[in-house]
Amino acid sequence: MLSDSEIAKQSQPQPISEIAKSLNIDEQYLIPFGNEITKINISALTAPSQQKDSKLILVSATTPTRAGEGKTTTTIGLGQAFTQLGDSVCLALREPSLGPCMGMKGGATGGGYSQVIPADRINLHFTGDFHAITAANNFISATIDNHIFHGNALNIDPRQIVWRRVMDMNDRSLRKIVLGLGGKMQGIPREGGFDITAASEIMAILCLANDFNDLKRRLNNTLIGYSYADQPIFVKSLGITGALLALLRDALHPNLVQSLEGTPAFIHGGPFANIAHGCNSVLATKMAMHHAEWAITEAGFGFDLGAEKFFDIKCRMAEIDPAAVVLVTTVRALKMHGGMDKNHLTTANTEFVTQGLENLDKHIENVQLFNKNLVVACNRFADDTDEEIAIIRQHVEDKGLLFAESNHYAEGGKGAIELAEKVKLAAEDSKPFEPVYYLQDSVIEKIRKICTAMYGAADVAFTKEAEKDLRHVEKLKLTMLPVCIAKAPSSLSDDPMLHGRPRDFQVTVRNIQVNAGAGFLVVLTGDIMRMPGLPKEPAAMNIELLPNGDITGVG
Amino acid sequence: MLSDSEIAKQSQPQPISEIAKSLNIDEQYLIPFGNEITKINISALTAPSQQKDSKLILVSATTPTRAGEGKTTTTIGLGQAFTQLGDSVCLALREPSLGPCMGMKGGATGGGYSQVIPADRINLHFTGDFHAITAANNFISATIDNHIFHGNALNIDPRQIVWRRVMDMNDRSLRKIVLGLGGKMQGIPREGGFDITAASEIMAILCLANDFNDLKRRLNNTLIGYSYADQPIFVKSLGITGALLALLRDALHPNLVQSLEGTPAFIHGGPFANIAHGCNSVLATKMAMHHAEWAITEAGFGFDLGAEKFFDIKCRMAEIDPAAVVLVTTVRALKMHGGMDKNHLTTANTEFVTQGLENLDKHIENVQLFNKNLVVACNRFADDTDEEIAIIRQHVEDKGLLFAESNHYAEGGKGAIELAEKVKLAAEDSKPFEPVYYLQDSVIEKIRKICTAMYGAADVAFTKEAEKDLRHVEKLKLTMLPVCIAKAPSSLSDDPMLHGRPRDFQVTVRNIQVNAGAGFLVVLTGDIMRMPGLPKEPAAMNIELLPNGDITGVG
Repeated sequence: MLSDSEIAKQSQPQPISEIAKSLNIDEQYLIPFGNEITKINISALTAPSQQKDSKLILVSATTPTRAGEGKTTTTIGLGQAFTQLGDSVCLALREPSLGPCMGMKGGATGGGYSQVIPADRINLHFTGDFHAITAANNFISATIDNHIFHGNALNIDPRQIVWRRVMDMNDRSLRKIVLGLGGKMQGIPREGGFDITAASEIMAILCLANDFNDLKRRLNNTLIGYSYADQPIFVKSLGITGALLALLRDALHPNLVQSLEGTPAFIHGGPFANIAHGCNSVLATKMAMHHAEWAITEAGFGFDLGAEKFFDIKCRMAEIDPAAVVLVTTVRALKMHGGMDKNHLTTANTEFVTQGLENLDKHIENVQLFNKNLVVACNRFADDTDEEIAIIRQHVEDKGLLFAESNHYAEGGKGAIELAEKVKLAAEDSKPFEPVYYLQDSVIEKIRKICTAMYGAADVAFTKEAEKDLRHVEKLKLTMLPVCIAKAPSSLSDDPMLHGRPRDFQVTVRNIQVNAGAGFLVVLTGDIMRMPGLPKEPAAMNIELLPNGDITGVG
Repeated sequence: MLSDSEIAKQSQPQPISEIAKSLNIDEQYLIPFGNEITKINISALTAPSQQKDSKLILVSATTPTRAGEGKTTTTIGLGQAFTQLGDSVCLALREPSLGPCMGMKGGATGGGYSQVIPADRINLHFTGDFHAITAANNFISATIDNHIFHGNALNIDPRQIVWRRVMDMNDRSLRKIVLGLGGKMQGIPREGGFDITAASEIMAILCLANDFNDLKRRLNNTLIGYSYADQPIFVKSLGITGALLALLRDALHPNLVQSLEGTPAFIHGGPFANIAHGCNSVLATKMAMHHAEWAITEAGFGFDLGAEKFFDIKCRMAEIDPAAVVLVTTVRALKMHGGMDKNHLTTANTEFVTQGLENLDKHIENVQLFNKNLVVACNRFADDTDEEIAIIRQHVEDKGLLFAESNHYAEGGKGAIELAEKVKLAAEDSKPFEPVYYLQDSVIEKIRKICTAMYGAADVAFTKEAEKDLRHVEKLKLTMLPVCIAKAPSSLSDDPMLHGRPRDFQVTVRNIQVNAGAGFLVVLTGDIMRMPGLPKEPAAMNIELLPNGDITGVG
């Protein structure tokens, strides 16, 4: 099979203005970046919609292997299938982060015959949204240290600054630093560090903002640290919110591109799926729903981690509700959950598949907990056998549920026609979603409900540190916020090594952090990485710029 | 008078595609960023030019006050005057840096009726060039630390890494840091720090590169540090040059905008004018010359600092040669040089103006040292009196030289008609420039020639450290490189407090740094700031985003 970039080379993309026109977006709202990418001004949302009954489809997955189960590729393939069926459809996806693209993971624009293009631009700087978020985040940091340097009128305690700098880079050496060294003219020495830009609260804020007023409100509410008198200090008191809004103005407008088969795709925002909510921007989702009958979106990691946040945080805040859920699984993931050695997942083995079904079952239960119809989609890989896939189909259909094998990677939209048709069936009698917890629940109750109902835990324990954090949240009167649990993505439990369907385990909550601007409490279980490192042989070593201007090795 | 943004609001810009068309640039070379900005693919330079005899004009200045003497504004005004006279003209200017725009200085898009637009976009993220440079610079850093972390096959000595991280931010707390803290999994602890992006060698490299091959060669040649065996280590050995080229691909294409009066302007690259050469990119200058009869460009700080580098570094490397020089001066600068209290420079006083003429005289001599014709332009400010300006005119014309008062700030191109006409006269019998030194000269000789001939120094002293650096340069066999002297911009000497025309002073060279990729030796005299700090009340506090999407307080 051809490489992703060879396949992309063969496609014949339409001018992006034509794609926008196909969505009935008036030309006045376009902010083009070359001929292949355009931002769409969010004021397009105030124009009358022809899609009163737009249906949103959420693509999520079973507990992923390290390589991922192909949620993005499935989302793109499903969109292309709708296009092939003649339906009005639009995707809403996350923006790739530069750091992982240079490091381990490579790009994030799909693969095979299910890609969004142009992959090189989308994976590298795209329209500069991540850079704008980096600049806004770090201008807050520079302002904090500068404020202390110039007399510290706000009485900020340098030991209690919770706001960290960010960089869109995998750079482990910046995780923990001492800054402000060099003497009286160089600032105040203190501990600090950098997270990757995708982990910035500004990213979460941008992705949850409904408009510029909401963005302003969230920025103002962002907690940056505490005074020597232990009083909270918010961005508002720095007096730079106008500058932050200016830095983020263009970044708030969603980016429109197309798939290999001309399916329109908004790609906008890319927050982490553990310490943040892990979905593309609310505005991109709304834009897709405003302009197409079918809007297809995804949520990061497995259903327990990403989709829970999609419903309990994003849908609740944005007042949206998907008509159905696609639960992506793979033969190799189920084999891993069935106990197979991770290095031999490409070897055919029906027994391990069967044993791994309990992971799928738990995710199915979780979808139903939210009161949603679903289709289980088996994303076919080249090594999968028909027998292995038949086991999954039989298991799902025996429950009276919808199943589709999807071969969009090798075949594009054509390979996802069965999936598209099942999705239409699933979306027919949609009921409103039921959240896992209510905002009025206590923080402990919220966490307990997610851990027991979603993860299948027997119990939740709180460290002394977490209990202290809880009292702090109470003091700040922020107990009404939803919770965003950071947990190992490779397990339903908080132990990354427990595959399958763990039972009788206890989740330990170590810390609770306040993201008052984003509007949630970050609940940390285990060590969560906010700044990845590069591997010994970074993916960047295979990136080349060709004489014709093409870039290979990205995406 | 109206504010800059009010004036800009009244202008009626043409679509940027029309501006490109007016330069006979074929549509295929355009990479539009909205309707007001486009990149022009550098392959446009390979299309046949209709401008075989294009004349380049360099705008420089006398020793500036802290506010600057309006070189950029004069350059824009002069270009507008050429447009008004019906001439084919194109500007080539530097890109503003975000850091100073948020801090002390504000934007850098001209002012009054001589501005380039859209000021908000140009001053904030523009087309992302600075962000791309930041990413490329910091990916080198991340790769260095990652290489050491994974076994250090290159034997890099962490105490001898000369490559620093950068950020486009005024953030003094990052000048000196300790990074890699936190234990075995977080990297190797070492000293480090951040410069502002404009001070990155990548910025200088991008601005001096003639094409992608030249960019690749320069990146490969960039020195990043030394091994434990004191051997130099270059970027090439990191194996990431392809990735760096990919990150910088779009950034290498110059950006085209327009002035308030529709004069085309390439705005591309913004290196510091002390530790780097301080001019817009070679490619932007060549693009302007390729597409217009008159190309007008500028060089940073005073003539001694910026224009010396323009000739001895940029013109020599790029094989270009200006037809004439505009030497911008102001009444207030000459009063400062005449000894007037800096806080009263707006008070009329002919005596101080007269006493300050010796600064102008030295700069005139310097222009003539390069064998160039010149026009002295007095950039008129609102408080200037006719008597003060008459003194300067008389003085210049008594020497048989060309003088023009320029009122472009208040009047736009119309206010610079006299200047444009004098520039045409000056450009009539241009002779090839004479460099101040030859590349074959020893490093000491190069430095001595600049210091004595340009600055008027009696002598040059080298610290022990500088002598050690010299031996190092010899060992690296890089003595053929041109030198880039970093010196106080507020004086012809290396003492920032010495105004007028200092005599009998000695320049002390403290350090000599190797910028092998950019292709020059950075000669440090005094403490040169590579990372500015924010003032107590940053300019950002006045930036606002209006409900209509306009940004005020920028530029």
